[in-house]
Amino acid sequence: VVAGPGDDCAVLQPRKGTRLVATTDALVEGVHFDLSVSRAEDAGHKALAANLSDLAAAGARPRWFLCALGVPRVPRSLWPVLLGTARALGSGMARLARAQRIALVGGNVTSASGWSITITALGEARTPLSRRGAKPGDVLVLAGAVGSAALGLRLLRGDPAVRDAGGEAENLATGAARAAIGAQLRPRPLVAAGLAAAPFAAAAIDVSDGLLKDLSHLLRASRCGAEVDCARLLRSPLVRKAEAALARAGKHRYALSLAGGEDYALLFAVGEARLRGLLAALRKTGVAARAIGRCLAGRGVTLRDGKHELPLPERTGWDHLDL
Amino acid sequence: VVAGPGDDCAVLQPRKGTRLVATTDALVEGVHFDLSVSRAEDAGHKALAANLSDLAAAGARPRWFLCALGVPRVPRSLWPVLLGTARALGSGMARLARAQRIALVGGNVTSASGWSITITALGEARTPLSRRGAKPGDVLVLAGAVGSAALGLRLLRGDPAVRDAGGEAENLATGAARAAIGAQLRPRPLVAAGLAAAPFAAAAIDVSDGLLKDLSHLLRASRCGAEVDCARLLRSPLVRKAEAALARAGKHRYALSLAGGEDYALLFAVGEARLRGLLAALRKTGVAARAIGRCLAGRGVTLRDGKHELPLPERTGWDHLDL
Repeated sequence: VVAGPGDDCAVLQPRKGTRLVATTDALVEGVHFDLSVSRAEDAGHKALAANLSDLAAAGARPRWFLCALGVPRVPRSLWPVLLGTARALGSGMARLARAQRIALVGGNVTSASGWSITITALGEARTPLSRRGAKPGDVLVLAGAVGSAALGLRLLRGDPAVRDAGGEAENLATGAARAAIGAQLRPRPLVAAGLAAAPFAAAAIDVSDGLLKDLSHLLRASRCGAEVDCARLLRSPLVRKAEAALARAGKHRYALSLAGGEDYALLFAVGEARLRGLLAALRKTGVAARAIGRCLAGRGVTLRDGKHELPLPERTGWDHLDL
Repeated sequence: VVAGPGDDCAVLQPRKGTRLVATTDALVEGVHFDLSVSRAEDAGHKALAANLSDLAAAGARPRWFLCALGVPRVPRSLWPVLLGTARALGSGMARLARAQRIALVGGNVTSASGWSITITALGEARTPLSRRGAKPGDVLVLAGAVGSAALGLRLLRGDPAVRDAGGEAENLATGAARAAIGAQLRPRPLVAAGLAAAPFAAAAIDVSDGLLKDLSHLLRASRCGAEVDCARLLRSPLVRKAEAALARAGKHRYALSLAGGEDYALLFAVGEARLRGLLAALRKTGVAARAIGRCLAGRGVTLRDGKHELPLPERTGWDHLDL
């Protein structure tokens, strides 16, 4: 960083031989976070994590970020409250930034109708991955568990369908429930996994909108179809219990893990010949990963549950505009 | 651009030997633009222009931008209206992008409580300028006129103080009034002027919050003071008339040009020895420029009006949080 915050512009000097990777994502109060149930620190963390997850899927090393903050208009007497919230947002962001060794290089504060955090993250990669590049026959590999973030949101909201999932889920203080809530409030971007996978994978995407939705983005960009064996999905025991309870209530048997969203797992397509290399590289990063299916010629996604075919869920994922 | 929109990340390959310059700015409906008086095309234009102006002040050549769009939550029946507005925002942005030969490389759409446009612009510069670097004795050079955008806003709002400024201002159809409204709705970022000035200037800032406010940002970063001769400011005849009318109503004699904001003029500090070179380089770009004052040892700004000392205006500029 040649020049950072305090000016209108940041000045950056990328290394030679690498490519600069840029992504932008906005979090809006009332849509992506809710300051009545989550702390401002969590919202700051999550805004940055969502962007780092996009860089991770590109196989890029995060380096810098810019943050545009929208602050609600309130009477002057309430400014100290705003300042406290802004500081907390910043400290959540700063802690993750330090852990990932990245620098805030620019920002902007404006008044708005409510809180919003728009982050642009910049990273470097030698061979960036994108959604394009998967071919029929490629194996689909999922790094990280799915369903926990959606379960965490339901637990926070006291959703009765999930409260009935078992004794454990009822008690928010259990380790398993707290892990699900943590996955929702403070997701961990799988940066090291993305870097490790980049030399092996043909295409990649992060699971932010829901596994099926993000898979369909990857397939559309790569012009192929796929089949997925849901029995291979990495799910916590509590997610399994909650999904079983939801299934008894008539929902899809993998409602949370297929369509839940906000897991920030990584989905890769990899040629058969490079599959072992990819799995070994991911194992070294300590992130659980598993082959969950395969790309096929044609269009669309077929679901299986072991040997049985499974219908698609009605709701395939999270669409912020689908309210 | 190696990969652009359609993926979560853009992949960029900057040229060797240059530095990457990044800036982010948000425009929020009800704060920075008002869809009841300005067209969505204008809002799209202005959001991008504000960011390009920051790059211009850094002496950077704009190359790429990312756009995060906040879209209000409305019933499904109103979605076609939203789509029309979003298209219009996009087309205003696209026209300016084409004119400046820059590419949209990434974006994000989210629902929010109202319209907002957050742009991150990236450019390249060999020797980027910043707010730091001005020294006592440096000459302050203003490129571009000031006061017109603030006058345009008052004309759009039918402000009686300005309506009384003279026969011309009363009629929004006159060329002079339309120019002021254009300066407000579709500001022109002085990109070529910034590039031309970069080899000569010691420090620079764009005049987005108001000349006095932005000057004070530059002086604080450079740790010096300044004196400015207001008689040297570039003001349109209609701004002069409007300021004279405002002065008769007890306001500061340079209320619009010192504190109006949104002019997107450029303010440079330049060593005496390089002043002629700077002015000649600016002249070639077709942008009017003039020495308006000088940096001094110490702190604070002293205003003159030719030979007479002038008080500072009560309101020194635009503060989005000061409502």
